[in-house]
Amino acid sequence: MPHIQLAEGLPGIRSLFAFRPETAKPLCELADVLLHASGTLTPGERELIATYVSSQNDCHYCQTTHGAIAAHHLGGDEALVLEVKRDFEHAGVSAKLKALLNLAGKVQRGGQQVHPEDIERSRIEGATDQEIHDTVLIAAAFCMYNRYVDGLATWAPPEIPGYRERAAHVAEHGYLGIPQAALAEAG
Amino acid sequence: MPHIQLAEGLPGIRSLFAFRPETAKPLCELADVLLHASGTLTPGERELIATYVSSQNDCHYCQTTHGAIAAHHLGGDEALVLEVKRDFEHAGVSAKLKALLNLAGKVQRGGQQVHPEDIERSRIEGATDQEIHDTVLIAAAFCMYNRYVDGLATWAPPEIPGYRERAAHVAEHGYLGIPQAALAEAG
Repeated sequence: MPHIQLAEGLPGIRSLFAFRPETAKPLCELADVLLHASGTLTPGERELIATYVSSQNDCHYCQTTHGAIAAHHLGGDEALVLEVKRDFEHAGVSAKLKALLNLAGKVQRGGQQVHPEDIERSRIEGATDQEIHDTVLIAAAFCMYNRYVDGLATWAPPEIPGYRERAAHVAEHGYLGIPQAALAEAG
Repeated sequence: MPHIQLAEGLPGIRSLFAFRPETAKPLCELADVLLHASGTLTPGERELIATYVSSQNDCHYCQTTHGAIAAHHLGGDEALVLEVKRDFEHAGVSAKLKALLNLAGKVQRGGQQVHPEDIERSRIEGATDQEIHDTVLIAAAFCMYNRYVDGLATWAPPEIPGYRERAAHVAEHGYLGIPQAALAEAG
């Protein structure tokens, strides 16, 4: 049961967006710039970083949601998403993405856990300053979203099919419309 | 030395705002709603929560910046800010703020570290659902800002006077103008 009174039936962070629209707006704008807006990292790569950090934080709702969005971007490859969560160093992704996932994992543990060699590895694999910046901020932002969702004990459906359907919509339309949709659904 | 190429002389998160204005905007809007906009918790109380979480994350720039803003709101009481960071349970703040600081500390450790008794304690001391929500989100957001600032190894001035001056400006005008000011200062 959620720690505060939230609209029933809305999963995870969507119930919090309906509760507090003033914070929902910047939270979704940040997610849209980092994960959906055009960039040199593909949306699939960025969603994999978000999914990996959420799994390290053991946040069921965020890792399932963003894992489903990542899989949608990757042509439905849900097995690859699981591989990245379990052991990204041996997953079927590029050496550059492995270096960025390593960097994201350091940020998840704490800002001071990032060492020059983590940055150096990313650069050697071809990452630009903006890609390094965005990886650090995606990882940091999911340390926020994960704590927000679990710290208020929001409800999340256990089953996967519902996540797939919402994932397809977010992958195609982005994050900006979510606060309005959550408010409408909350009634 | 910062891990990426940033404008020199801009401290902490301001150098990152100048580097990436697209993410600066939602990051400052979120801070403004949570810390500066009108609410039932005073700006001083909310800045103390932000300062406490930043000190638990050992982020020099954020705890000094928000500690100075908190002190400004509290009539210049820098000793109280130090007390809260060192041992809030015995600091000269209300029982309600102590309960919210306890809640924020749990969120800092992880979303699943919040237990029903942490919420119950806050309610007994008079906290509303929105105050509980905002405390959780302030704590979660500073787990992001702290990691962002330290994960990219931004530069921060060690001395306190500069912080006091900027703190007075932010305490009075809020966070919305900071990205524009950072861009102008970066030249």
